[in-house]
Formats: sequence, C-alpha cells, structure tokens
Amino acid sequence: MGKTIAVLPGDGIGPEVTSGAIRVLETISQKYGHNFSFVKGNIGGSAYEAEGHPLPESTLSICKKSDAILLGAVGGPKWDTLPAHLRPEKGLLAIRKELELFANLRPVVAFDALLDASPLKRERVTDVDFVIVRELTGGLYFGNPSERRGDVAVDTLVYSEYEIERIVDKAFQLAKTRKQKVTSVDKANVLESSKLWREIVEKVAKKYPDVTLEHVLVDAAAMKLITEPASFDVIVTENMFGDILSDEASVLTGSLGMLPSASLREDKLGLYEPAHGSAPDIAGQNKANPLATIMSAALLLRNSLDLHEEASVIERAVTDTLNSGYHTADLSVNGAHAKRVGTQEMVDKVIENMAKYMPSSISN
Amino acid sequence: MGKTIAVLPGDGIGPEVTSGAIRVLETISQKYGHNFSFVKGNIGGSAYEAEGHPLPESTLSICKKSDAILLGAVGGPKWDTLPAHLRPEKGLLAIRKELELFANLRPVVAFDALLDASPLKRERVTDVDFVIVRELTGGLYFGNPSERRGDVAVDTLVYSEYEIERIVDKAFQLAKTRKQKVTSVDKANVLESSKLWREIVEKVAKKYPDVTLEHVLVDAAAMKLITEPASFDVIVTENMFGDILSDEASVLTGSLGMLPSASLREDKLGLYEPAHGSAPDIAGQNKANPLATIMSAALLLRNSLDLHEEASVIERAVTDTLNSGYHTADLSVNGAHAKRVGTQEMVDKVIENMAKYMPSSISN
Ligand SMILES: [Mg+2]
Ligand SMILES: [Mg+2]
Repeated sequence: MGKTIAVLPGDGIGPEVTSGAIRVLETISQKYGHNFSFVKGNIGGSAYEAEGHPLPESTLSICKKSDAILLGAVGGPKWDTLPAHLRPEKGLLAIRKELELFANLRPVVAFDALLDASPLKRERVTDVDFVIVRELTGGLYFGNPSERRGDVAVDTLVYSEYEIERIVDKAFQLAKTRKQKVTSVDKANVLESSKLWREIVEKVAKKYPDVTLEHVLVDAAAMKLITEPASFDVIVTENMFGDILSDEASVLTGSLGMLPSASLREDKLGLYEPAHGSAPDIAGQNKANPLATIMSAALLLRNSLDLHEEASVIERAVTDTLNSGYHTADLSVNGAHAKRVGTQEMVDKVIENMAKYMPSSISN
Repeated sequence: MGKTIAVLPGDGIGPEVTSGAIRVLETISQKYGHNFSFVKGNIGGSAYEAEGHPLPESTLSICKKSDAILLGAVGGPKWDTLPAHLRPEKGLLAIRKELELFANLRPVVAFDALLDASPLKRERVTDVDFVIVRELTGGLYFGNPSERRGDVAVDTLVYSEYEIERIVDKAFQLAKTRKQKVTSVDKANVLESSKLWREIVEKVAKKYPDVTLEHVLVDAAAMKLITEPASFDVIVTENMFGDILSDEASVLTGSLGMLPSASLREDKLGLYEPAHGSAPDIAGQNKANPLATIMSAALLLRNSLDLHEEASVIERAVTDTLNSGYHTADLSVNGAHAKRVGTQEMVDKVIENMAKYMPSSISN
C-alpha cells in the first residue's frame, strides 16, 4: 500500500517527537510491506522563520496531496511578540480551517503503569478507555454576531443539521470499531441548539442499531467523567462542551504526555498530533516524551489508513514499554523496575516491543 | 436580634431535613439570645396539592417579608405528569426569578471522615475548601433569540456590564471573609462576552486590593478542579460555566449529601437549600442525611444574618460528628468507629457537638 504522510514537525520538541514517530511508522511500513513516504513541511514559528508565515502555501499543498498529516507541536516565547496573524498557533487554526477538519478525536486510555500519578483513586481509572469526539468548527466559538453593543456583549451559538449530522456520524462509525456505545452530551433541557443536536443524534442512531446510545446533560457529564470514567466508550459533543470536557478528561489518567489527538475531515484525511504543547524549555535535550506522538501515529494508521492491526501493534508495544518501567522525566513511575530514559531510548524500546506482535518476515 | 426565617420544606425528604436544620437554628437562637421566628410556606409538589400551584402567592409573600429562606427539596414521580408550568421544579425557578436571586453559591469542603469515598486520591482533596459563585439569571440559558430557523438552531449569550459587576462584587465580598483569593473563570481568548467579563472583573478587583485575583480559562479550570482543587478559594463565573463546574466540583469530596447552596439577591436576602434532591424513595423513613441542610442553615447565618461565629459553631459540630464516625446510610464511612444512624440521631449528635463551642449561659 503506497501512502504519503505529511510530517509537520513544528517548534520546540516537535521535531524530536515526530522523528521518533516516523521511526515507528517506518518499522510498520517495512514489516507489513506498506510503502509509506514521508514529506516534510514547515508550520508554526519555524515556518515563520523559514518562509515568513506560520502556514506557508507550500505546506498546505503538501498536506492536500497526502493521505494523512503528522504534526509535532507549535509555539514558543520567541514568537510571542509577533502580530496575531503571524503567531505559531495561527498555523494550527489555519490548517484545520483550510482542510475542513471538523472532527476532533481525543482518546483517553488508562495505562496501569501510570495510575499512581492519576489524581483519581486507582480503582476509578483502571480500564478507562474512551474517545471524546468534539465538533471543531461550529458553535459558540464561531457564531455571529459576536460583538459589543454599548454596555452589553453578545455571542451566538449556531448549529445546522448538516454540521451536527456529520460529526455524530463520525462518532457512531468510531463506536462500531470499539465498544459499541455512544454518549451524546448536550444541554437539551435548556438550549435550542441542543434540542436540534439531540434530534439529529436520534436520527443518526437509527442507522447504527448495534450501537447503544445514551444522552447525558453536560453538567452531569462533567460529574460522570470523574465518578465513572470507565463507563464511557465514545462521547460526542459540540465545540464548547467538547473543549471543556476533553480538557477535564485529559487529566484523569495522570499521563498528559501520553495523549494523542486527531482532527478529521469527512473523507479519510486527518491531522494527528500530541495533545501536549511544544515545551521549548526542554527542546533538543532528548528529554521529551515521544509517546503521545507515537500514539498519534497509531491513530493515523487506524483512522486515515484503515490499518487497525498495525495501530494496535504500536499501542500494545507502548503499554509493554511502560509496564516494564521505562519512562521519560515527565511521567511519574515509581518502584524497583522504574527506569528513566531519554526520547531516543524510549522510541528504541517501543520499536523493540513491537517486534513480538508483528509478522517476522517481510511480506511485500 | 429578631429575625424571620421562611421555611419551605417542599417534597420528599424536604420536611425531615428542614426540621432537623430548624432544631439546629433554634439551638443557636436560644444560646446566643437571638430571636429567630420560623414561618412555613408551601413549595413544589406539596404546594400544588395544597394550593394548586408550585409557588403559591402566599409563599412568595412569606418570603418577601423574611430575612432569609430555608428550603428543603422539590419534586417526585407523583407530579411528573403535570403540565410543565405546574411541575414542582417550576416553583424553584419561579422563586429565584421573583426574588431576583442572581448569585448562586456552592461551597465545596472536604471532610476528612469522608475522603475514602472521594473519587480523588486522599492527598488531592485534603484541605479542599472553596466556593463557586455562579451567575444565575443571565447568559446562554436566558438569551434571545433562542430558536429554530429552518435547519439551523440558534442560542444567544448576552451579558451586560451591570449583570457581571454585581456577581463579581459578591465574589470579592465573599473572598474578603475567606482566604482572600478570587479565581475568575471565562473564555476570554474566544468569546466577546468573556472579554467584557474580564474587563469588569479587573475593574471590580481594584476596589479589593487585598484580594488576589487570577483569571483561568474554563477548559483549564475544568482540569484544575481535579488536579489542584485545594488551590481555590472563591471561583466566580457566568451561568453556564458555573453550571458545569459546580456539578463537576460537587463530586470531588465524596459527599454529595453534604453540599449546601445559597442563592442571593443584591441585599442580604438569600435562599438556602441542600444541593441534593428530594429523594422520594427514602422520604419519611428517618434515613435522609440532614447535614447538607444543616450546612445550608450555617450559610444562611453567615450570608443573610451576618452571624459568622454562630455559623462556624454549626460547621465545626458537623465536622466533629463525622469525625466521631456518625453517618447516615448515603455516606461511605468505614473503620471500627463507624456508626450508622438515622436522620434524627444525626441532628441530635450535631446539636450535642455544638455545645462545646457555644457560650454556656443564655445571653439575652
Ligand atoms: Mg481547550
Ligand atoms: Mg447543573
């Protein structure tokens, strides 16, 4: 299978974590006889340095010709004084908009080896394995009017049936490949937009008779993420609720450095990146945790290339690596077997652990 | 001090928990030589039964003549089939609106005796003691237009300077009596209403130079409530953010049956009620936990009657009662000293424990 993956390393630790993920993807490519080619592009502050813009045309053109995009991270104090439209973060917003990436996926998985670092009691987080599917281009953050009128300020929450239907459909499709459950989060007891949301969810659900659907109000969902996080499979919600709930969910398992994310279009194209930032303070020191980016690469295989077995090889190898005590400085792992390593060694260990799950001979 | 307290027992366990709180308040009244008189009114389903409306005029009139209002709980399956405007919950919405109770206070306090039941690790919740101050009458839940337009649904978030200023001022006033810190929660990096919110917060803060102010974005606040709940003192935010965050906060300490709430007007009038519901399944069985209502009575003394010493006598007695192992069936308390008791006995124990903090002779 010949596939082109755009790689946008970005700023700070972006280059080292993406190069780790590329090594992992190359291993997959060789062992399974796929033919991945990687094309690099600039984004963020480093793109501004090299090409004068945080999202150069050249980068966009590379992305449009690719099957999937792997991104590191953008931003750093160096570019804080630039005018708003040239800041690194604008590169990220612009690429989502230009490529119509409307569905944000944030998987949250508990790793046994990291549960001591979770703010939750161990028994609450064990077995946590859910994905938040957040609508990314509509709702209160983009509605008009959004303005000041004398001593009053107004924002507008707008959703169309079409916008709701396509994100909800993504969520049901995803649930079909997982635990067959969708939790739709809204505020349908108060908001008109949530009433429409719930209607569309009910309509879409009819196409997926094997998937169990539950509706949870957003305030109750904020409670349930803490009290029963293991009860969720796929959570789908609108932009702002998703913003709040996905950040809330990100701290449950004690492993922010482990969290991947995906931003998807209606077809298979997607952008994959770690949920963490560019950490300029530790950039270039072989200290960064590459696992969130490696897990993002697994998401890429699963969602853009339909390579499910290959994705789970990576995921299992990451789990094994953590279970044998290997961890970077950001992860709190205690006990006699704990071994702190650098970025490179962590990638080496993951690749080592992948071997036992992969076919031993090259198959192409 | 002659003070009139309206008591609206409501439905389900409402009558038993309010009568427990009245016994506590009568003890305070006697020991400190205050002259509290209690005037009862109907609300909710029982008001519909007795007077044909969930908020009868007679009740509203009692409340308007009172210094403070103590409410039990409303609702029950018995009234689920009534038309919307006659349902028990409408009584609660109507009284808040009629009395212009725009500030909702939700204190969250960790009780050592209950920390095993918290979903969070013990060390994270120890010392948690904060109050969420939520704007209750504006924002997205009340803005117009809120309607369907063809295949699009619209809701509107509106805030005026005046609405923001009065709630923020309440928060700073409260912080002055506590740990001198206000955390203002908004989404000022995106929303116009939040930009106005932040401007007003900055303006009000100038009147309170001794109070430390921090701004936290709502998504970051949802994380920080879990990772660093003990870092907060007073959190102030708009209606919807407050709805989500106060429910999230309510599960942190493992003691939903302990949580009081207050809804305040610009003057001293306030309505005080437990955060829990009417629990019709255990009504009249001496099983209900009266502590959330007793803690609400303490809030009433502090906020509407300025009786701070008296309030803390109650709060300390509740802590002592829990520490000596007494608990109702809803609370998970383990260990050799754990003693499960009924509603009445719980109230008795609190009153017993109040004795050691109060003046021994009657002072009027
Ligand atoms: Mg966010
Ligand atoms: Mg709520």
